[in-house]
Amino acid sequence: MKPPRLGIAMILSGPSGAGKSTVCNLLRQRNPGLCFSVSCTTREPRNGEVDGRDYYFIDQKNFQRKIKNNEFVEYAEVHGNFYGTLKSEIIERVRAGKDVLLDIDIQGAFHIRESSKQYSLLEKCTEFVFLGPPSFGELEKRLRGRGTEKEEVIMKRLETAKSELDHWRDYDYLVINKEVEQTVKDLETLFDILHKSTKRLEDSGFYT
Amino acid sequence: MKPPRLGIAMILSGPSGAGKSTVCNLLRQRNPGLCFSVSCTTREPRNGEVDGRDYYFIDQKNFQRKIKNNEFVEYAEVHGNFYGTLKSEIIERVRAGKDVLLDIDIQGAFHIRESSKQYSLLEKCTEFVFLGPPSFGELEKRLRGRGTEKEEVIMKRLETAKSELDHWRDYDYLVINKEVEQTVKDLETLFDILHKSTKRLEDSGFYT
Repeated sequence: MKPPRLGIAMILSGPSGAGKSTVCNLLRQRNPGLCFSVSCTTREPRNGEVDGRDYYFIDQKNFQRKIKNNEFVEYAEVHGNFYGTLKSEIIERVRAGKDVLLDIDIQGAFHIRESSKQYSLLEKCTEFVFLGPPSFGELEKRLRGRGTEKEEVIMKRLETAKSELDHWRDYDYLVINKEVEQTVKDLETLFDILHKSTKRLEDSGFYT
Repeated sequence: MKPPRLGIAMILSGPSGAGKSTVCNLLRQRNPGLCFSVSCTTREPRNGEVDGRDYYFIDQKNFQRKIKNNEFVEYAEVHGNFYGTLKSEIIERVRAGKDVLLDIDIQGAFHIRESSKQYSLLEKCTEFVFLGPPSFGELEKRLRGRGTEKEEVIMKRLETAKSELDHWRDYDYLVINKEVEQTVKDLETLFDILHKSTKRLEDSGFYT
């Protein structure tokens, strides 16, 4: 017999170049039962992006209505576009014992942490994982390796990444992404082990 | 490069009959680098027990002196004998990044939890794991299976076990001991994953 339990909402965050998207994609591919939180945005879809898979593409008016209706667990404006995480992508799923993965930037993760302090279900279910590069030098190599940007764009991104790296202390776990297969295994193991955490186990019926 | 980190002090506790000793023995056998916290006691050694391995067997006077010198992280009197966990078995080891395993009863674990609230190093390093039986029925079967005690002794132990089972909520993790090999693997994985917890990582020199 197993006690009923809440699902985990794993917030995976880290600096640009740490490999978040690659890790998330492989993790989802290998774990079809794992839910993924799709964000809302007001920006235009890029080539190949699919509504409802990559983002929910909505207009400004719709986004503002959702803000007013308190539908977001966090949202932010970046370069004139809005991005937000819907409560509905997380709450009902974790209540039903399903695990949810969130691929989110440092700022968004910070806002979810703040929200969760006000909302005990969210506090119980969220686990904050910082995906870090093996070193700053390695991050620089990866960002330069893309080879598509001008030096000044690269310098700007490196500066941002450097300040973002400092935030690993604010997370529950630090996972170093040295090799993507191993990182995905580490995250799978993290899910397994965190299922043994008592804070998400429900009292009713266990050992009685 | 890996950031320097503190070791884990894993407090393994649970009701009599859950299989704590068997699990601890196999875990230590398979992980020679894992330290084990040996307790002090004033009771007489039993057949086959070795001083410094099973317990530090000390006299009342010595035990009282250690209490006075504040050498224990917890101690208790049980049926006229004293039992205690020495700070020296934990503190220096976790500071040096070594993991320590503690096999301890429910009452002792509770006292360590209370102490750790006053002592930030202990709070960072301790992880409380409740080793539970698959069900109460299974625990009864195991306690009866020993076949050495009278019915009234068994009834008394079952009553104690029943009230102890309730305490799983006070722990960080609940590990169900269905099959000892799997349980030991679960605990090994728990150590691995908890090494990624940021609270024990030290700031100096990482990503700079």
